[in-house]
Amino acid sequence: MSRLPAAWRACVGTGRMELALRRDHQDSLALIQREIGFRHIRGHGLFSDGMGIHRPFTHLGEKHVRHSFTYLDQVVDAYLGMGVRPFLELGFMPDGLASGDQTVFWWKGNITPPRSWSAWADLVRDTVTHLVDRYGLAEVRQWPIEVWNEPNLTQFWLDADADAYHRLYEITATTVKDVDPDLQVGGPAISPGSDKWLETFAEFVVARDVPIDFVSRHAYTSGPARHVPFGTHQTLGPASRLLEQFALPRHQLAGTPLAGLPVHITEFNSSYRPDNPVHDTAFHAAYLAPVVAAGGDHADSFAYWTFSDMFEEEGIPVALFHGGFGLLTHRQIKKPTFHLYAFMARMADEILSRGPDHLTTTDTTGRVTVLAWAPVDHEDLRNSPSSHALRLSVPMTGSSAFLMRSSVDEQYGNAWAAWREMGRPSSPLPRQLDALREAAEPVRSHRGLPIVDGHVTLDLTLSRHEVTLLEITPVRDETPSWWDDGHLLGMPS
Amino acid sequence: MSRLPAAWRACVGTGRMELALRRDHQDSLALIQREIGFRHIRGHGLFSDGMGIHRPFTHLGEKHVRHSFTYLDQVVDAYLGMGVRPFLELGFMPDGLASGDQTVFWWKGNITPPRSWSAWADLVRDTVTHLVDRYGLAEVRQWPIEVWNEPNLTQFWLDADADAYHRLYEITATTVKDVDPDLQVGGPAISPGSDKWLETFAEFVVARDVPIDFVSRHAYTSGPARHVPFGTHQTLGPASRLLEQFALPRHQLAGTPLAGLPVHITEFNSSYRPDNPVHDTAFHAAYLAPVVAAGGDHADSFAYWTFSDMFEEEGIPVALFHGGFGLLTHRQIKKPTFHLYAFMARMADEILSRGPDHLTTTDTTGRVTVLAWAPVDHEDLRNSPSSHALRLSVPMTGSSAFLMRSSVDEQYGNAWAAWREMGRPSSPLPRQLDALREAAEPVRSHRGLPIVDGHVTLDLTLSRHEVTLLEITPVRDETPSWWDDGHLLGMPS
Amino acid sequence: MSRLPAAWRACVGTGRMELALRRDHQDSLALIQREIGFRHIRGHGLFSDGMGIHRPFTHLGEKHVRHSFTYLDQVVDAYLGMGVRPFLELGFMPDGLASGDQTVFWWKGNITPPRSWSAWADLVRDTVTHLVDRYGLAEVRQWPIEVWNEPNLTQFWLDADADAYHRLYEITATTVKDVDPDLQVGGPAISPGSDKWLETFAEFVVARDVPIDFVSRHAYTSGPARHVPFGTHQTLGPASRLLEQFALPRHQLAGTPLAGLPVHITEFNSSYRPDNPVHDTAFHAAYLAPVVAAGGDHADSFAYWTFSDMFEEEGIPVALFHGGFGLLTHRQIKKPTFHLYAFMARMADEILSRGPDHLTTTDTTGRVTVLAWAPVDHEDLRNSPSSHALRLSVPMTGSSAFLMRSSVDEQYGNAWAAWREMGRPSSPLPRQLDALREAAEPVRSHRGLPIVDGHVTLDLTLSRHEVTLLEITPVRDETPSWWDDGHLLGMPS
Amino acid sequence: MSRLPAAWRACVGTGRMELALRRDHQDSLALIQREIGFRHIRGHGLFSDGMGIHRPFTHLGEKHVRHSFTYLDQVVDAYLGMGVRPFLELGFMPDGLASGDQTVFWWKGNITPPRSWSAWADLVRDTVTHLVDRYGLAEVRQWPIEVWNEPNLTQFWLDADADAYHRLYEITATTVKDVDPDLQVGGPAISPGSDKWLETFAEFVVARDVPIDFVSRHAYTSGPARHVPFGTHQTLGPASRLLEQFALPRHQLAGTPLAGLPVHITEFNSSYRPDNPVHDTAFHAAYLAPVVAAGGDHADSFAYWTFSDMFEEEGIPVALFHGGFGLLTHRQIKKPTFHLYAFMARMADEILSRGPDHLTTTDTTGRVTVLAWAPVDHEDLRNSPSSHALRLSVPMTGSSAFLMRSSVDEQYGNAWAAWREMGRPSSPLPRQLDALREAAEPVRSHRGLPIVDGHVTLDLTLSRHEVTLLEITPVRDETPSWWDDGHLLGMPS
Repeated sequence: MSRLPAAWRACVGTGRMELALRRDHQDSLALIQREIGFRHIRGHGLFSDGMGIHRPFTHLGEKHVRHSFTYLDQVVDAYLGMGVRPFLELGFMPDGLASGDQTVFWWKGNITPPRSWSAWADLVRDTVTHLVDRYGLAEVRQWPIEVWNEPNLTQFWLDADADAYHRLYEITATTVKDVDPDLQVGGPAISPGSDKWLETFAEFVVARDVPIDFVSRHAYTSGPARHVPFGTHQTLGPASRLLEQFALPRHQLAGTPLAGLPVHITEFNSSYRPDNPVHDTAFHAAYLAPVVAAGGDHADSFAYWTFSDMFEEEGIPVALFHGGFGLLTHRQIKKPTFHLYAFMARMADEILSRGPDHLTTTDTTGRVTVLAWAPVDHEDLRNSPSSHALRLSVPMTGSSAFLMRSSVDEQYGNAWAAWREMGRPSSPLPRQLDALREAAEPVRSHRGLPIVDGHVTLDLTLSRHEVTLLEITPVRDETPSWWDDGHLLGMPS
Repeated sequence: MSRLPAAWRACVGTGRMELALRRDHQDSLALIQREIGFRHIRGHGLFSDGMGIHRPFTHLGEKHVRHSFTYLDQVVDAYLGMGVRPFLELGFMPDGLASGDQTVFWWKGNITPPRSWSAWADLVRDTVTHLVDRYGLAEVRQWPIEVWNEPNLTQFWLDADADAYHRLYEITATTVKDVDPDLQVGGPAISPGSDKWLETFAEFVVARDVPIDFVSRHAYTSGPARHVPFGTHQTLGPASRLLEQFALPRHQLAGTPLAGLPVHITEFNSSYRPDNPVHDTAFHAAYLAPVVAAGGDHADSFAYWTFSDMFEEEGIPVALFHGGFGLLTHRQIKKPTFHLYAFMARMADEILSRGPDHLTTTDTTGRVTVLAWAPVDHEDLRNSPSSHALRLSVPMTGSSAFLMRSSVDEQYGNAWAAWREMGRPSSPLPRQLDALREAAEPVRSHRGLPIVDGHVTLDLTLSRHEVTLLEITPVRDETPSWWDDGHLLGMPS
Repeated sequence: MSRLPAAWRACVGTGRMELALRRDHQDSLALIQREIGFRHIRGHGLFSDGMGIHRPFTHLGEKHVRHSFTYLDQVVDAYLGMGVRPFLELGFMPDGLASGDQTVFWWKGNITPPRSWSAWADLVRDTVTHLVDRYGLAEVRQWPIEVWNEPNLTQFWLDADADAYHRLYEITATTVKDVDPDLQVGGPAISPGSDKWLETFAEFVVARDVPIDFVSRHAYTSGPARHVPFGTHQTLGPASRLLEQFALPRHQLAGTPLAGLPVHITEFNSSYRPDNPVHDTAFHAAYLAPVVAAGGDHADSFAYWTFSDMFEEEGIPVALFHGGFGLLTHRQIKKPTFHLYAFMARMADEILSRGPDHLTTTDTTGRVTVLAWAPVDHEDLRNSPSSHALRLSVPMTGSSAFLMRSSVDEQYGNAWAAWREMGRPSSPLPRQLDALREAAEPVRSHRGLPIVDGHVTLDLTLSRHEVTLLEITPVRDETPSWWDDGHLLGMPS
Repeated sequence: MSRLPAAWRACVGTGRMELALRRDHQDSLALIQREIGFRHIRGHGLFSDGMGIHRPFTHLGEKHVRHSFTYLDQVVDAYLGMGVRPFLELGFMPDGLASGDQTVFWWKGNITPPRSWSAWADLVRDTVTHLVDRYGLAEVRQWPIEVWNEPNLTQFWLDADADAYHRLYEITATTVKDVDPDLQVGGPAISPGSDKWLETFAEFVVARDVPIDFVSRHAYTSGPARHVPFGTHQTLGPASRLLEQFALPRHQLAGTPLAGLPVHITEFNSSYRPDNPVHDTAFHAAYLAPVVAAGGDHADSFAYWTFSDMFEEEGIPVALFHGGFGLLTHRQIKKPTFHLYAFMARMADEILSRGPDHLTTTDTTGRVTVLAWAPVDHEDLRNSPSSHALRLSVPMTGSSAFLMRSSVDEQYGNAWAAWREMGRPSSPLPRQLDALREAAEPVRSHRGLPIVDGHVTLDLTLSRHEVTLLEITPVRDETPSWWDDGHLLGMPS
């Protein structure tokens, strides 16, 4: 047996950092942490003006800058209070330090290099130093620090200028290490489609002996966007393509001096659009199930992008379900993919077996858990099989076992389907939200199972797009010797 | 249309009053109030020594009594804080005031008349006065005050002496009215099987012009107990017998000066034993469904005995499921009968139709709710039908409706069944309690329904012992004109 | 005796509406409501783009607008959940509807008239209709609806164009009344210094018979701002000037058809700057005490601007204490002025007496409360008296009374003073925040007082800038006859 | 410097175990843990019938016993959930196992030896095994297991029969060790006044090689009780007598094979009566302060008896303040002695200096804390000094320090004094409870202090019976260079 790697829960994505000041965001994160429990959280915009860190001012005719951490502290206090650590992404550029006015997103993150490299280094140094002062070195050493986001795209970094990024990386990494050499710094956080970038970056880092503790990239499988108002449709590649992207950095770095560095997939999803309804569906959970189950073989973390629909890159959502990335909608309605993660969180820690439609684990108490999923047709959902049969035999001690099964599919654990049946209310009333919350819970069934020859046999039928969790525990029968269910209400035994 | 009477939620029973000091009891009541919302709560033992009210002492060689309300205040504060009012039952006898040492229950409630009638009157007067001082007259006038419990049984009142009870009633009622004439006092709280007692009591009250604001009795359908260790089996009569018992006081008082007085069924259940497993079953919910749905036709309240398994009349329960009366077990596991009540709490307020297997209601928003239940065989559960079909047509405006269905039966919403499959753990581990809580939730399904000729047709199939709630709401379709689900993931429209 | 008007708690101000999505804002408001209990809350920016209501889009080559209420619902749900109702201010202009690009504040509220009056009317109509649909007409009729903010200032309304405002008012008021004639609409929400504006506005409204349910204006006493980095100093006028401003609308409207309309002072404070440290001081509470105590004589509401330092008009605060308007800082540190309001919330409802340094109230239980304050020198704080003596005699029944006194001054209930002594930490550590919370509590003392001739005599000495609350209740002595404190630990009596 | 031993917080006492099922008890413990943080909790009655563990039954004419843990699990789950571990005391005798009917306390704990030693061993074995099964061996090994309570007194052990106790100890200790040899067992839990008992017990244990992991005894300083109704007066010895009692077991065991065993003072207080008002007073905190500050020099734990007034040995309290042992009254009113402990919980971990009226500590951050107390006259409170001066110099780095001082005395932090002034209401109204909670908080003051030659000089004046905590932290001044308080409101600098 081998251990199930914790990479699947090592990190999760979030919208820009200041959203973490919001109540809905914090309520959602608290729920996520209670039922899933991610280790780190990563989002954009730490240095964007909404966080209020970089504060130029003039005094007696001279220009100065003050670095202020009023909101950063509120965010990090909240994160740590919910048991999740920041995975810091250093970016974007504060307006007062920017060399241009190009921005990305509705919320206008400035994507230009700093006007002054030394002022940028001051900003990085003061921020990291402040965090160390406030949270302690032992704590902050556990927070990976990533330099910028997707510099290979012109939307995110002016002209996608690799040389400029390398300079940014070098100055930033060096500055971070000046604060403390055991802080963990890395990059280049590239998007899919520019795989060479990582190699060039690695060569630069090696050549100039720049500090690096991890490498990072992103993974998505969607094709080009076709827009409708407040929505997007896209084709998808097969889910296996995500695993290929997860695996690529290790392949690329093999044989180089960077071989063996931790690889963090700091964003992944099917579609990279926050307005693609695929994120809301049961299909999505079944599509990603094999990725979440196996991704830990290929990378040290892979961060679902993102945990909450409280996200504003394309503006403020106009309806409760709007194709957002979230595992949760606003108001904490669980989507099927939430349950995929919540099911993973209940898996045991030793792998018993794996297959194209399942993962089986156990632990020292003899408990066995099975995650199983229906195969999907990612090109034409109507071709996804309407049912899928699966037979498993799992080891178990004793004479009988208790099985609890939890499932989500097109009907159960599927608030989006209920919301469509409700007429797609943009702003559901409180009683509609209550109904959606009920519709969002998995169906649970249970039964006793015989143990034959040290095994329990499971004959499963999965419905269309079903993801199911089976928890099987050995039974210790405490029924008193004198008890006879047959006597219940006068029935003869 | 007629209004659905609120009698079903007017009152609920609880174990002896001091149990309300317990955390588990309060957590259970808070949950009950959140999902059901009873108006009053009634239990025994207000004057028993565990409440510490009657406190004899000696000073300078003379005997005195102090009346102390340390715990009574804690209990009533907790009740009111959870939105439920006391239905006061004055009893049993404090040891220091008792004329004998006969007791009832494991916890030894003294069942003898007072040694001094004037000391009893002092106790009643001081207690009621204290409550009025603390909670205000307007509040306390809403608390019915019942004199003693089941005086027609020798277990509860020495020799079941009717004359002594009449005297107790007269002195108590007069004393209560001396505090304030608008306080509500009543009795005689008799058990089934002594129906004449009510008539005799009524004659006494009328003849002596004793104050009376309501009459009360109890209702049960179980036969004699056959004991096993820590458990009891009994036969049951048909559920309709409960409705007959509810109806009896109005019949008995018709034509007397007491006709028209409110009638409170201050206890009802199937079995009167707190160790009969029938209380834990899906059968029980289906058995009682027609009673809860129709009981309001016959009485002003009928109080399910009792809301929680935190109850000690037969001693401290030895296992999580032990046949207790509770709608909830210790640790707040919901039983099927809990859901019968929770479903009732979601019914609308106007009755549309009733039948032997359903109740249909609506309200001014056009929402329709259906409570339906499978018929049961109360003599031989194996003969309860394995499925039951039901066809209903309900009025609805618009072109489509949204249906949410919630059900409990032998599989769903049935923690007891899961607990049996687990091997009946006496003291379930935390992870077992979590699984039981999940098993205890109803299954929820949803769908869109067409509205044809102003009606929705419901073809229902109920499983064995199923109780189901259907909530049907008119749909206002907000789907944007440009939206086409067919485009989801590249599907042709 | 006359009743103490509730005007002081009728409304409170807040920063722009979207801040109400934040956790710190909601935690602060919850605390405010628990200890003070305002009835309404008013802030800017309902229609600004951060709320995401006005959403232009293009479909098939045509421009459309969708009105979306995702965040508005979250804000209003939160308000109502905390027991406070919105006082709606309709403004500023969504970018997509603006006729120019002039903005106000760091967060860039657009201050120009709409590009299309009919599109503005659509926006108003849809928003109000949505609120009525969601919250019910009976509820929304209790929310005053104010048109724009301070249109008399060029910073807030392009060119401070009165005619354009009148047009805006007329279209808006008419549109609101079209939704329901009992909704309450008003204006013109002018700042101090343009008193004539109200008269002109009133003439316009009367002349054209435009609907109006209330008039509104603001009140401040500060002089011109002298800026330092991240801070402002200003002179102040006497506090009585606030009462004069409160009183002005009634004087101005006397004799006009608008006489008798409710007058709402929808903002007031000493300084109108959110970076003036005077807001943080004990002086501020003593300065405002006579205003809060007497303001209800002059207007129907006067809304303290604002309840929380979570406020961004001048950018994100760089330090915990920064001269913000808040009754609470970020992280819920109470300022002295918070306690002024919390003391008011504990006053009884009938006025016994008033004076230049006190207000005395009582209620039907015989409880007497006194709010007293030290006189201040608003021009030179060093001249504020270091102590102030006050002698009061209040009626009380019985033989003795219990007095609880709560005070804030330069030492007690003064977290700002402690923060200065701490070295003004910009981002206090958790343990510093704990210390500040402790420093922020009033000092409480208590004593027994004799009642002589039906009165209690209070000889008070107030320290510099002290505001104090005295709560005096009649004692009902329950000491047992046998008790002798002298026997405690063997002391002879 | 030496470390401040944690003995003061190692354990705290509680009333009989079943009281831990109560809401008030749990609310009190949660508050205690939040502000003090004890490590273990010990009380009587684990095996008494109110816990429902020992359950005889008859089946098919034969007698059996079932051991049931319904309530024990609820109690231990609650303890661990609040971060405190059980210090198990095995006793008293279940009625069904008792050899006689002698009882102790209002709640009738049976004090007789078991009728069957093997049945007793079964009870111990099953209980300990159940706890290990449920909570894990690693956890339960951290719970000391003490055999019986005060067997040297005839009230607690039939005839105070030492031989019978030795037999009980041997059988119990052996049985516990049979479950796991690393479980910690000890005794003899003797009361003061029978010091020889410990020596005899030690000889027995050594002679027969009986397992023993710790020794335990109790400590009290009160003289004989003089009763009044619902109250008791007693003389007290000097507080130093407690330290002498703490120290005695180490002296007694020195040179024996048991030397070096942990010594647990499993109960201590001034008076051993739960109805002696001394427990409620400021005197009590000042009297015990030197004991709590120095007790760790003499024993491994000393458990304040008890944390809560929810305690029923002498019956149910008839008034809020009644001389109970509690650090908290019912309803969580803090007594002065609560604050003594809460102050201790804020002390640093390294001792700087000690004296007859103070304890000074520091830690690696440079923070210094001082606990100081006024000397008391324990024979005649009127002779306790009305003020006490104290001068301390403590090391501190930098140029200035911030001091926060918290005090309780005859006026501040003294709810009992306020309650007396209120007329001693037996059942305070909610508003009276609120006032008492406010009166119960310490007074807090703060100031900046200069650091001269690396030291801060503290000139303290303590009032009568004052206990005070000083927290002094070095200041890092962040005041901006441009800031001038003199400009506040136009004042010249």
